[in-house]
Amino acid sequence: MPGGKRIQKVGIIANIRKDIALECSSGLKKWLQEQGTEVFLDAEIAAALGEKCGLERQTLAARADLLVVLGGDGAMLRASRSVRKFNIPIVGINLGTFGYLTEVNLNEMYPSLERILRGDYSTEERMMLDMEVVRDGQTSCEYTVLNDVVISRGSLTRIIDMETAVDGSYLTTFRADGLIISTPTGSTAYSLSAGGPIVFPSQNVIIVNPICPHTLTNRPIILPSSITINVKVWSEEEGVNVDLDGQESITLKSGDTLIVRKSRYVTTLVSSSNRDYLEILRSKLGWGRLPAINR
Amino acid sequence: MPGGKRIQKVGIIANIRKDIALECSSGLKKWLQEQGTEVFLDAEIAAALGEKCGLERQTLAARADLLVVLGGDGAMLRASRSVRKFNIPIVGINLGTFGYLTEVNLNEMYPSLERILRGDYSTEERMMLDMEVVRDGQTSCEYTVLNDVVISRGSLTRIIDMETAVDGSYLTTFRADGLIISTPTGSTAYSLSAGGPIVFPSQNVIIVNPICPHTLTNRPIILPSSITINVKVWSEEEGVNVDLDGQESITLKSGDTLIVRKSRYVTTLVSSSNRDYLEILRSKLGWGRLPAINR
Amino acid sequence: MPGGKRIQKVGIIANIRKDIALECSSGLKKWLQEQGTEVFLDAEIAAALGEKCGLERQTLAARADLLVVLGGDGAMLRASRSVRKFNIPIVGINLGTFGYLTEVNLNEMYPSLERILRGDYSTEERMMLDMEVVRDGQTSCEYTVLNDVVISRGSLTRIIDMETAVDGSYLTTFRADGLIISTPTGSTAYSLSAGGPIVFPSQNVIIVNPICPHTLTNRPIILPSSITINVKVWSEEEGVNVDLDGQESITLKSGDTLIVRKSRYVTTLVSSSNRDYLEILRSKLGWGRLPAINR
Amino acid sequence: MPGGKRIQKVGIIANIRKDIALECSSGLKKWLQEQGTEVFLDAEIAAALGEKCGLERQTLAARADLLVVLGGDGAMLRASRSVRKFNIPIVGINLGTFGYLTEVNLNEMYPSLERILRGDYSTEERMMLDMEVVRDGQTSCEYTVLNDVVISRGSLTRIIDMETAVDGSYLTTFRADGLIISTPTGSTAYSLSAGGPIVFPSQNVIIVNPICPHTLTNRPIILPSSITINVKVWSEEEGVNVDLDGQESITLKSGDTLIVRKSRYVTTLVSSSNRDYLEILRSKLGWGRLPAINR
Repeated sequence: MPGGKRIQKVGIIANIRKDIALECSSGLKKWLQEQGTEVFLDAEIAAALGEKCGLERQTLAARADLLVVLGGDGAMLRASRSVRKFNIPIVGINLGTFGYLTEVNLNEMYPSLERILRGDYSTEERMMLDMEVVRDGQTSCEYTVLNDVVISRGSLTRIIDMETAVDGSYLTTFRADGLIISTPTGSTAYSLSAGGPIVFPSQNVIIVNPICPHTLTNRPIILPSSITINVKVWSEEEGVNVDLDGQESITLKSGDTLIVRKSRYVTTLVSSSNRDYLEILRSKLGWGRLPAINR
Repeated sequence: MPGGKRIQKVGIIANIRKDIALECSSGLKKWLQEQGTEVFLDAEIAAALGEKCGLERQTLAARADLLVVLGGDGAMLRASRSVRKFNIPIVGINLGTFGYLTEVNLNEMYPSLERILRGDYSTEERMMLDMEVVRDGQTSCEYTVLNDVVISRGSLTRIIDMETAVDGSYLTTFRADGLIISTPTGSTAYSLSAGGPIVFPSQNVIIVNPICPHTLTNRPIILPSSITINVKVWSEEEGVNVDLDGQESITLKSGDTLIVRKSRYVTTLVSSSNRDYLEILRSKLGWGRLPAINR
Repeated sequence: MPGGKRIQKVGIIANIRKDIALECSSGLKKWLQEQGTEVFLDAEIAAALGEKCGLERQTLAARADLLVVLGGDGAMLRASRSVRKFNIPIVGINLGTFGYLTEVNLNEMYPSLERILRGDYSTEERMMLDMEVVRDGQTSCEYTVLNDVVISRGSLTRIIDMETAVDGSYLTTFRADGLIISTPTGSTAYSLSAGGPIVFPSQNVIIVNPICPHTLTNRPIILPSSITINVKVWSEEEGVNVDLDGQESITLKSGDTLIVRKSRYVTTLVSSSNRDYLEILRSKLGWGRLPAINR
Repeated sequence: MPGGKRIQKVGIIANIRKDIALECSSGLKKWLQEQGTEVFLDAEIAAALGEKCGLERQTLAARADLLVVLGGDGAMLRASRSVRKFNIPIVGINLGTFGYLTEVNLNEMYPSLERILRGDYSTEERMMLDMEVVRDGQTSCEYTVLNDVVISRGSLTRIIDMETAVDGSYLTTFRADGLIISTPTGSTAYSLSAGGPIVFPSQNVIIVNPICPHTLTNRPIILPSSITINVKVWSEEEGVNVDLDGQESITLKSGDTLIVRKSRYVTTLVSSSNRDYLEILRSKLGWGRLPAINR
């Protein structure tokens, strides 16, 4: 979506485990105030910087026009989940390894933000997935993710059976180390390492990708995002995990059902003109380098 | 799409290389006429049966309300391409190996057709792809496919370079044995054997899948069907092939550009209530069988 | 190796979790005694059958000329590890799903054993792997496996780094869900579901296969069995698992080193003339069935 | 094998399609003569340099103690096939892209050769494969390769069936785009791009790897090098290709049988101390770079 609105209030979130993130937060706050912008700091950064005015993420997201995230893809995923209800544009400032989600490199932070503040940016909506666990007929928990919901056998030595239905129709029972249910954004994360395809992010599809399946003809599946996926998990021992964006984790009991569907929430990413998805692919996947094979 | 219209005129196409197809055509024609249905025979079958009234496929498609194809997936692909401009519903009667596209098995032909004739059927539109070759700035040929457009090095010993752009933006240069550009319908054909995902057929996506790429990080890519794909093919020797649905073939010169995009034509498949796509997957891919691995 | 020796003492091991295994053990014992053969029961079966004469597996292996295992591949793996020091020929009687290691189906048990008892059999030696864990400069535990040693991140959400050397030379640091180090026998177990090749069992090779590696160019590697593999495991959290033949499990600390090498022990399998490895492959992998793809 | 013999006569082969190869040949010849070494030029280079003393490759290999190949992996493959009967050590001087077979980079050519000339080098034997085609009961041609024998459907649109036996026992009938039969050396060439494993070069194994097989459970297979592989090729149309090291090509008729087995010839590569196979893997496959996936 081209044409952003003028930004007057900015929230800052940072990966406080990185020293550089704190340092940049401090400098950024000062710079933003000099531009006449109101600044809100995430409670964690405020505490780390010894400032008092920190806000909880949700309050911050409710008040700001733009969220700046200082960190890597991990920080972006965390931020996107916690502010999902506020439809606020998010821009990631990449502090280390070049990522899929962080739009701006550190050395281009100020000129990029200058353009963004005056409304010279476009936004891109990224699909999210809602997941709930049904145990004994009752929803026991609910989550929303930007990348993926991953069922895995964790430290069980024995295999798990994942009885999978789409819109109520039986698909198959995956017998595997796990099952990745991913958005297009998540296609270049875990799913890629499990043999999944690259899915351009704007699409309304869900990827279902078994991890090390016993049945060798089980393959990644691309489903319409209008579909609801039910996975009933069977295991001899307790202790099947569900990982959310690879960052949070819950434990299932045998017989639990996971229900996954497109979320009504989206993550709104700011796109500056700096680089596009094709460039990110070429760079992250080394497509510009010499091929591995001489024939 | 549920709710079909009543059928009064039926065209029959068959794979005349199979004796059983001819035999069935003859029986089917008689049965249809007994139901008060007008029947048109494809010219090839008519000739093989010694009848005079054969029609060219396009004439037949223009006149009939329903097309019955006796054969396998190969016959369905051929039929779908040749009648693409007439938006006629097609039903495949499977004469041999259970297929992805043939809806009805031979032993259920008459009861199934009885239901279809009285309008008790739904239809499903399958996306097709248009492909044109641009040589020296001019379009040198155009085709429409239901499954896939496949560029391949054919019998060249040396590799080919395929400089690929999406909507005019450079993606990468695939150095590979070939490149598969596929519809969702084609995802379970060649693309699957080249490591591609299974894509549920109703979706508006295009699969771009390199065959044995030199760069090991080249992977299948799922693109929105709104995109136009340009592939400029470079090879030291002449003789790069383009295969259309694996049935027709043209030869490229080095420097030719292939342009592939979603077609305005679709293939309209009749769905009876007999079986659905999930069943086809389970059956064709052996997902119901015991796993190959004992752990 | 063709030409077996005449068998006078037989040990019986069974998967006592299966009722049929107990039932068969009882019948088999009686039949063997009628043939004039001395029979030793594994302590577990003896207890389950209410007999007193049960022997520990190692004692049993020391006294018998032949070990009969009633169960599936799982029971064979367990038996092979527990009797590894006794170089006793083992024959598996398959009680359920057709396996890779069980030579004889239940319905051919008596005729097959009749031939084997009179020496009409050959044997096949299968390579095993020794594994030890070095912690703080000391060997903390040692195991021997027939299929595989598998390092895995278990229920950690974060990735693990596995710094891998062959014969003391640095190979690479796998960043992955885990690492499979497998014998040829294990090639058709976990390794196959993680993208590994099929390795004919007689060969002196070790397979190193990363599970869902982050670096997409990491691929299964086939190494000579003369090589020693060292893997130093790094993780932020404690709790990395090592699974042995998928049946036993130990937990590592970050900084632990795994040393894996060819064992001096082998598993000696009895081959009757009933079926061979090629047949097993075709049957388990469905190579005789119709292909999944119609082109 | 450590400990090389002192070198007194050197043959030079070069990829004469590269200008730099000619230039280096000329300089190298002069330098070698200054060291008191007798030099033989390949006929092609001699002609290109306007010198008269060029020798056919086989004559040159018969007379020299060492063969220096100026070029890339392609030039090494060509040279290894043409001099295979003479068991002469070969050293490759890499003129462009870093390769799997060329040991020495251009900038280290003189110091490396200095060491080699005085016997300070070791050698490594690489397995080769013999291939013959049997047509109508008669051997119609024979070849020896260092990398691979590849059967492929070439520009046929229809699939080919490859009925495969090992040591006379039926394995399976591959229905695929082709079949790669590779040495360990060839494992990092075509086979790698077709999903095959990396095989350390010293091993006595043969890789059989189907290209885009229709049966999804067909996987790369590692066989002992003592085995003879027979592949009977069936196709509806004529025109199946066999490619030898990706450089030479012959055409099969339907019903022809390919027989492939370990050759009595080997390629003897000079290993200086500059770099080893593990380094080559890391460099060619980018294992030292940052991973493609951020999780």
